[in-house]
Amino acid sequence: MKLRIIVSLKNGVLDPQGKAIQHALSGLGFDGVDDVRAGKIFELDVADTTTDEAVDEMCRKLLANTVIENYRVERL
Amino acid sequence: MKLRIIVSLKNGVLDPQGKAIQHALSGLGFDGVDDVRAGKIFELDVADTTTDEAVDEMCRKLLANTVIENYRVERL
Repeated sequence: MKLRIIVSLKNGVLDPQGKAIQHALSGLGFDGVDDVRAGKIFELDVADTTTDEAVDEMCRKLLANTVIENYRVERL
Repeated sequence: MKLRIIVSLKNGVLDPQGKAIQHALSGLGFDGVDDVRAGKIFELDVADTTTDEAVDEMCRKLLANTVIENYRVERL
């Protein structure tokens, strides 16, 4: 079973990487970029018997820092 | 206009970050994780007049290293 886990910073948490990218795009001549937020994506190939609870626990224990990050699980 | 750009390593390119995560999950007692690939996701807020070509150019010039990475653009 393929899973896609998207980890992104919570709203209100400063995103220096995103800001740096936004400035770099502007410097390259791309206008009209109002905001950039950078995140991480993990594509997991797990056994079909893996439960939703186990996936949730993987995210909370290892993949995401839930103090500052949200995560979302998509089944492919 | 909101865009989501997903940057992932091409098939065949070694992914040490993904391998480290796979081993860490196994160490935490999660069995059946056969593969992990790590990637990046950028959420851009761009002007509605931004063309597909401009977005493509942003990816090729800054967001992705097309030698080793693929990118995919999704409009939200």
